[in-house]
Amino acid sequence: MPDFYKKSLELHKRLAGKLETKLKTPIRNKRDLSLVYTPGVAEPCRRIAKRPSDIYKYTIKKNTIAVITDGTAVLGLGNIGPAASLPVMEGKCCLFKRFGGVNAFPICIDERDPKKFIEIVKAISTGFGGINLEDIGAPHCFEIERTLINELDIPVFHDDQHGTAIVTLAGLINAYRVLDKDLRKAKIVMCGAGAAGMSIADLLYDYGAKNILIVDTKGIIYEGREHMDAEKTRIARLTNPKKVYGSLTDAMYGANVFIGVSRAGLIKPEMIKMMDNDPVVFAMANPEPEIMPDLARKAGAYIIATGRSDFPNQINNILGFPGIFRGALDRGIKKFTNEMFIGAAKALADCVKNPTREKIIPDPFDTQAHKAVARAIR
Amino acid sequence: MPDFYKKSLELHKRLAGKLETKLKTPIRNKRDLSLVYTPGVAEPCRRIAKRPSDIYKYTIKKNTIAVITDGTAVLGLGNIGPAASLPVMEGKCCLFKRFGGVNAFPICIDERDPKKFIEIVKAISTGFGGINLEDIGAPHCFEIERTLINELDIPVFHDDQHGTAIVTLAGLINAYRVLDKDLRKAKIVMCGAGAAGMSIADLLYDYGAKNILIVDTKGIIYEGREHMDAEKTRIARLTNPKKVYGSLTDAMYGANVFIGVSRAGLIKPEMIKMMDNDPVVFAMANPEPEIMPDLARKAGAYIIATGRSDFPNQINNILGFPGIFRGALDRGIKKFTNEMFIGAAKALADCVKNPTREKIIPDPFDTQAHKAVARAIR
Repeated sequence: MPDFYKKSLELHKRLAGKLETKLKTPIRNKRDLSLVYTPGVAEPCRRIAKRPSDIYKYTIKKNTIAVITDGTAVLGLGNIGPAASLPVMEGKCCLFKRFGGVNAFPICIDERDPKKFIEIVKAISTGFGGINLEDIGAPHCFEIERTLINELDIPVFHDDQHGTAIVTLAGLINAYRVLDKDLRKAKIVMCGAGAAGMSIADLLYDYGAKNILIVDTKGIIYEGREHMDAEKTRIARLTNPKKVYGSLTDAMYGANVFIGVSRAGLIKPEMIKMMDNDPVVFAMANPEPEIMPDLARKAGAYIIATGRSDFPNQINNILGFPGIFRGALDRGIKKFTNEMFIGAAKALADCVKNPTREKIIPDPFDTQAHKAVARAIR
Repeated sequence: MPDFYKKSLELHKRLAGKLETKLKTPIRNKRDLSLVYTPGVAEPCRRIAKRPSDIYKYTIKKNTIAVITDGTAVLGLGNIGPAASLPVMEGKCCLFKRFGGVNAFPICIDERDPKKFIEIVKAISTGFGGINLEDIGAPHCFEIERTLINELDIPVFHDDQHGTAIVTLAGLINAYRVLDKDLRKAKIVMCGAGAAGMSIADLLYDYGAKNILIVDTKGIIYEGREHMDAEKTRIARLTNPKKVYGSLTDAMYGANVFIGVSRAGLIKPEMIKMMDNDPVVFAMANPEPEIMPDLARKAGAYIIATGRSDFPNQINNILGFPGIFRGALDRGIKKFTNEMFIGAAKALADCVKNPTREKIIPDPFDTQAHKAVARAIR
């Protein structure tokens, strides 16, 4: 077992929970009790009963979100269920607090039916100021997110989709600054049509990069192909109106950008060599990328990014979600838009003063980056 | 507006949430990140996927409970709904942490149908080590609690029922020590047949006090009376097998103990005078008791308790629930029993070394009392 697995297990055992609750005001005596609890607490209750929006004034809803999962698409682990996903959700909540000052609490929901799942989230949403959906598999995640956005009056964000898309776009913006070319004119291959892939394509399209071939396990997607669903058809119609078809290898021919959220080792050096000059390769499969950076470089990749912290240019969601919700809670935003996400991506890109091939994205510990994202959302 | 209402409102506004989350381990660098989150977190996930009980070893489930309500019976405020109940639930969570070291998080559920409510609680219970039901109105609270106890493998506790019952029994035990008589032989009038009243009667019966007349708005309850439900019939059959009938006044005649969880001013001095010698009066309606202590005393009440902190002998749930869950979480208890509750009541009573008429119950800030309850549950 690698060292970080062993050490992580030890840490989790020692802590038995990475998160705890903390009182924001002391309870020292009966007077404190009468203010925090009965009888004094009756007054804020009455105010909220009279004017529902006062819940933001007097309660945790102001600065607390739920991190919600069904445990069907957890990290690289897949469908391990809600119980086994809890360490990830706790970890996510820790990151929200650490990098965004957002109180986040994990809710693992034991329900696979998307309609029932939606009803449960709606019913428990009262006390939360936002909802971060996490590690919910495609295609359910699309229906769940869309319905919750429509029916709730608090911001809902599926990090595996939009978080990944924002940070990827930020990286691409800076890659194209290094290249001194226009990202909007790039021919992009998006490999992987799950939650992340579809959302990256969607955001790139709204950013202005219209030429995107999305590739799933059956090849390039296009309207009318077999093995399509509503979401794939919608995006294919936008990004591949000419109904280009073929394999991943076909797609790579002459491409400027490869983005992978698929699986380890899918890209061979020959495929990189088929790309246009100075290709940009974002091989973000976890934990093993679609092609290892040294191989990609040898094959001619000019700028390389991965999802890993042990290589340069880590495309790390941590740069997105804490600031996204920090901004939303500060501003009382009810719904996120792609416009906000593009603003956040630009703000993130701008945090790297002089982008280079080895430095297109801020460090996760760069406090200014999180603040910049929050400002962009606000 | 009384001062504590104004001050409480100010405090709630200043805090905008009385509770926050806190990391139990710092995230200072990429190494910390890799242990708390990816990739290290995958290992505890895998362990839990393989052996579900390991969730107690590696996650917040070990020491975290949910404080859950539907907002239908909040404090003295009644059915104000889930949103307006949030300040109370937050307050309750603060008390769990402050007095029991238990991490508690509020979940206000917007669902009035008890069957659906139960399904929601079950679906979100994965990450919690226990469930404290709070301020859920009768009779739904009985069905909800009973079903959840049967169908979940974590302890479920409805504080308005059992918390009140435990602390009331503790007070009565010491009242009878002061009187040097046997509580089990007392004739008891239980006024109020909601969540608290029914549970107090039930616990007293299991303690050995079999002679209890329960009075609701229609008079003494007995099997076969009009306006009964399943729960009332069950308890009436036990405590009133002779099917005594009549009004509250009829019930008071010759009684040794009056317990009120009903409404302000319901008891007149004449009714106290009808009781047996040295009557014990627990007038616990909030915020105004069934009879004010000075009036009760003048009418001959020997020992008087209320729910208020500004009179002696406050019957305060705070003495119960933190230690109850502390003990349950420490020991991994899956279901509470009346035997545990009676043990907790005795332990609480024993914390008052020399009970007097003015001191039958420990102070809520008595750390030893909370520890004694936790030990009794363990």
